[in-house]
Amino acid sequence: MVVTVIGLGLIGGSFALELKKRLNYTVQGIDNNPQHAQKALELGIVDTVITLDKITTSDVVVLAVPVNYLPQLAVQVLDLVKEEAIVFDMGSTKEKLCKTVEYHEKRTNFVAVHPIAGTEYSGPEAAIYHLFDDKVNIICDKERSSPYAVATVVEIFNTLKMRTIFMNSKEHDKHIAYVSHLSHISSFMLGKTVLEIEKDEKNIFDMAGSGFESTVRLAKSSPHMWSPIFIENKENILSSLNEYIDNLIEFRALIEQENSTGLKQTMKATNHIKEVLNGIKK
Amino acid sequence: MVVTVIGLGLIGGSFALELKKRLNYTVQGIDNNPQHAQKALELGIVDTVITLDKITTSDVVVLAVPVNYLPQLAVQVLDLVKEEAIVFDMGSTKEKLCKTVEYHEKRTNFVAVHPIAGTEYSGPEAAIYHLFDDKVNIICDKERSSPYAVATVVEIFNTLKMRTIFMNSKEHDKHIAYVSHLSHISSFMLGKTVLEIEKDEKNIFDMAGSGFESTVRLAKSSPHMWSPIFIENKENILSSLNEYIDNLIEFRALIEQENSTGLKQTMKATNHIKEVLNGIKK
Repeated sequence: MVVTVIGLGLIGGSFALELKKRLNYTVQGIDNNPQHAQKALELGIVDTVITLDKITTSDVVVLAVPVNYLPQLAVQVLDLVKEEAIVFDMGSTKEKLCKTVEYHEKRTNFVAVHPIAGTEYSGPEAAIYHLFDDKVNIICDKERSSPYAVATVVEIFNTLKMRTIFMNSKEHDKHIAYVSHLSHISSFMLGKTVLEIEKDEKNIFDMAGSGFESTVRLAKSSPHMWSPIFIENKENILSSLNEYIDNLIEFRALIEQENSTGLKQTMKATNHIKEVLNGIKK
Repeated sequence: MVVTVIGLGLIGGSFALELKKRLNYTVQGIDNNPQHAQKALELGIVDTVITLDKITTSDVVVLAVPVNYLPQLAVQVLDLVKEEAIVFDMGSTKEKLCKTVEYHEKRTNFVAVHPIAGTEYSGPEAAIYHLFDDKVNIICDKERSSPYAVATVVEIFNTLKMRTIFMNSKEHDKHIAYVSHLSHISSFMLGKTVLEIEKDEKNIFDMAGSGFESTVRLAKSSPHMWSPIFIENKENILSSLNEYIDNLIEFRALIEQENSTGLKQTMKATNHIKEVLNGIKK
């Protein structure tokens, strides 16, 4: 099995590590940043570094680049690969990508995949083992991929100890905007607000244990990964962001009015998230 | 040493556990909720449960009730305790409390304390060992307390492995609004926004690994603890919340304009939080 991973950062790099370790695959790597490619080679993330024109012999090609490059890259790769090759991406937005490849003659070779895993770090140095363990993997629009391609991808992710679920790409983008993308925006803006006021940083240092540290964790995330996601999934994100801002404005009014009953009711209703998240732990 | 802890929830309960374990103190407990008092006794958090009129023999009285009850309770307790007793609170807001006791004849017996520790759980069942280990403790307006009282309190918190720092109560309330209180509001409203859209909860369950879980953790916090904090520290919180909303609106405009450069610049500047938080880890 010849596998090529394109994009050797946190996700692609961690995935390559697992393919080598758990499936004993030989993994070829491609990265448009020569330093990243070199680093991935040094760190043993990939066995060799190749150029895109060499993927014609690959059995599996994994696309792990920022989402703005995905649609064009997917077409380019599908054009090049052999008839029976399987191509899948690992991006956080799906609708535009699926639309772009919709009428490609090798559409059934392609599987739209979103493994829900990550950390706030980036680049090949951020690649780690066990990143995907016990997490959820989403395959979108599976009816547009060949059953063989879907089965192969599910098997690979099963080996990585992921639970695969299936969604429509449009629904995926809507839900992920609320549950993932909005979290990143709220965290980035929290970090920004606090950095602006705490210019000497000493107070952040001293007070971060008070809930700030976990809430702001995502504000360490890569701008190069996230800017394209926010733009690609613009419509859904703007809806979620508008609702978030409206909720903040409502809550602000309750504080202004010193409306203790209203504040408690709102927080109590939101405490329900506890049961939802406890459900996840089970 | 006779110690009384008033308020046997997460903070008071955890503190009582440590006083018993590390300092071998006999701890008396008071809670206006008889079920909480009974539970604390059952769980071995306190040795006995007493009523407020019995605190006249206490050497140390710890006030661990919601912040809206603190000013009145502090006065009541200072009125009752013996001449050499030490009284300190553990609340998250300080300015109003310090103003209320400012001219009390036993003001120097009182120390305004804020140990920066907690979890998103509440009540006596939430009391745990090691809650305070390696965290920061803030003493406000120390020049208004007797050197003996301050030294005693610092020693107790040292034994609990906390690092004590000193701040002015007004400054404390301003900084904690940004670094702690705002985090809770952003988290509560994130939880609310996602619960509103994800009515069947299945998608939260499946997608929570994508950053949502850590960002929304604080939305599990106690409404009874937090509603008084938001009202007590209203002015500072409204300032921080206004800046937060303004930042979200600015970021929304960048997304609307698909301004990739602006988005990246904003996120890159905020990534600086990484170094600030890494500083904390050292």
